[in-house]
Amino acid sequence: MRIVVDAMGSDKRPLPDVEGAILAAREYGVAIILVGDKPRIRQAINQHDTAGLTIETRHAPEEIVMSDKPSHVMKSKPQSSMHIGMMMVKNGEADAFVTMGNTGAVHAIATLSTLRRIAGVKRPALTAIYPVRGQETIFLDVGANADSRADWLEQFAIMGSVYAERALGRHKPRVATLSNGEEEGKGNQLVREVQERLHALTLNYIGHIEPKEILEPRADVIVMDGFVGNIFIKTFEAAIVYLGDVIREEIRANPVSTVGGVLSRGAFRRVRSRIDTRGVGGAPLLGVNGVVIKGHGSSDSFAVKNAIHQAIRAVQGNTVEEIRRGLEQLKTDPQGA
Amino acid sequence: MRIVVDAMGSDKRPLPDVEGAILAAREYGVAIILVGDKPRIRQAINQHDTAGLTIETRHAPEEIVMSDKPSHVMKSKPQSSMHIGMMMVKNGEADAFVTMGNTGAVHAIATLSTLRRIAGVKRPALTAIYPVRGQETIFLDVGANADSRADWLEQFAIMGSVYAERALGRHKPRVATLSNGEEEGKGNQLVREVQERLHALTLNYIGHIEPKEILEPRADVIVMDGFVGNIFIKTFEAAIVYLGDVIREEIRANPVSTVGGVLSRGAFRRVRSRIDTRGVGGAPLLGVNGVVIKGHGSSDSFAVKNAIHQAIRAVQGNTVEEIRRGLEQLKTDPQGA
Repeated sequence: MRIVVDAMGSDKRPLPDVEGAILAAREYGVAIILVGDKPRIRQAINQHDTAGLTIETRHAPEEIVMSDKPSHVMKSKPQSSMHIGMMMVKNGEADAFVTMGNTGAVHAIATLSTLRRIAGVKRPALTAIYPVRGQETIFLDVGANADSRADWLEQFAIMGSVYAERALGRHKPRVATLSNGEEEGKGNQLVREVQERLHALTLNYIGHIEPKEILEPRADVIVMDGFVGNIFIKTFEAAIVYLGDVIREEIRANPVSTVGGVLSRGAFRRVRSRIDTRGVGGAPLLGVNGVVIKGHGSSDSFAVKNAIHQAIRAVQGNTVEEIRRGLEQLKTDPQGA
Repeated sequence: MRIVVDAMGSDKRPLPDVEGAILAAREYGVAIILVGDKPRIRQAINQHDTAGLTIETRHAPEEIVMSDKPSHVMKSKPQSSMHIGMMMVKNGEADAFVTMGNTGAVHAIATLSTLRRIAGVKRPALTAIYPVRGQETIFLDVGANADSRADWLEQFAIMGSVYAERALGRHKPRVATLSNGEEEGKGNQLVREVQERLHALTLNYIGHIEPKEILEPRADVIVMDGFVGNIFIKTFEAAIVYLGDVIREEIRANPVSTVGGVLSRGAFRRVRSRIDTRGVGGAPLLGVNGVVIKGHGSSDSFAVKNAIHQAIRAVQGNTVEEIRRGLEQLKTDPQGA
């Protein structure tokens, strides 16, 4: 398997990206192509022992930064690492593309100028995968489409279910719609319409779910529109950071609790590892003609390595082809037209 | 000042409701009218020393439970404590109504069969008030209207701003719209339209805000549609509970960290009190012709007492009349028609 890794993605590029790629090549035995500024990539590679590993490089003269407008980069930077990397997947030179870069740019370049949508896909969806009580749960859409339609979310449910089954190894994934209450009839007009559509499909659809039930966890795939999804994941992260800050301040506020905090250090380390999203590393952009895994800009090499692992699982699960097949059930459905 | 308190509101009614009312009468010197099942209220009162306090009772033969459908209780239970209590406010027999009961029923009875909307108000909004780094922040709408219009949210912004100024004592409250990004142009169609409207008003409107910025805190009033708002507060609460559970499990998983946890007990107590919503106790239903404060069903007497304090502040701030006046600026605005 050959994975193209964007060396110019993370905030501290190219070091975490290159090191993560080397770790993945060693751990999973895959061939890696690092795409980006070749001299800087070489310099980063030279800090490591890569004997026996298949690590290639591909030069990309243009660099996308976090402040770049997605609509702009497509035209103004056709030689970026993202563009070249995704074209390699498109041309069959590689099996997957992994990046920690600008989310909007990933979405725009994949959808509009390189891989493009799978036939029949109305809108691709950005996903997030979080460990919930030791189990990977996939959330979509977390930001690609701020104004969504029910037929788009219907496709997201199928794409998420296929991915959970094929890449995350979940048997008959439980699919739920995020809502403001469980009862039928709760929700806004959009999720009520989505609920009706999903009941009609051959999915393991369990209905609406509230935020606290996600954490039990009651579902494997959580479907929502991109505006709600983006606020959902940001609220969750903000609450965790907030509580962590408050705990830290209060433990340090008093000598006895400071000692207590030192003794509890191992426990806090285990807490961090349980809620750490770096263990997943990245999540797919679903609905495009190729495996694209996007990780966080703040990723370190451990997160990059795990994002590459996610790409490997997505390729092994044949997720792109399986999504194409999964969506076929909509073709016989007059509502899906 | 006379406050009607629903004795049949909390999950453990009437004990926390009655005890909280007695605490409030003692601490704030207000007259209390407890409405509900008179024999049970009397029994609860008799457990306390109420010498020198003005505590009256009013019998309500019907009881609303959490499972009651809001649309149903209005017609089927016209003699409920909520109905009678709110009618007392309407008739001028009391200055405010406080309840820990069924949210949907509070909203329906206030809006449709007792107090009704302030003239010109399109939709009342449910609010939540949270302590954020020691400062009260008001969120609305948190669930009254799952499908909202921009002109409703425009009114929510004004109502929230008036309340923050008059009841929470905030000078020129900073009003923000919750969105998936700060930049102009971010957001879904609804919040973009709301943003345009709010820029045109005489509000201290600071634009879009992301969840993490709420916690800095950058704003005093956070405006959102009822579907997003309900998911926002539930996600925040769920994340806090989740992290608390994980920390507890990991501290208990090992003898050294268990000792550390014991030594940090004071710190954790301070953390709990800092994030404790019982200190606020309740938040208003805004847009109806009277002060209605709704607290959580799980409230204890401390929370009930604080909800009554919230009612006192709302009455002292003349919030209902000030909201009426605040909304007048929309009348000269052709968009507000």
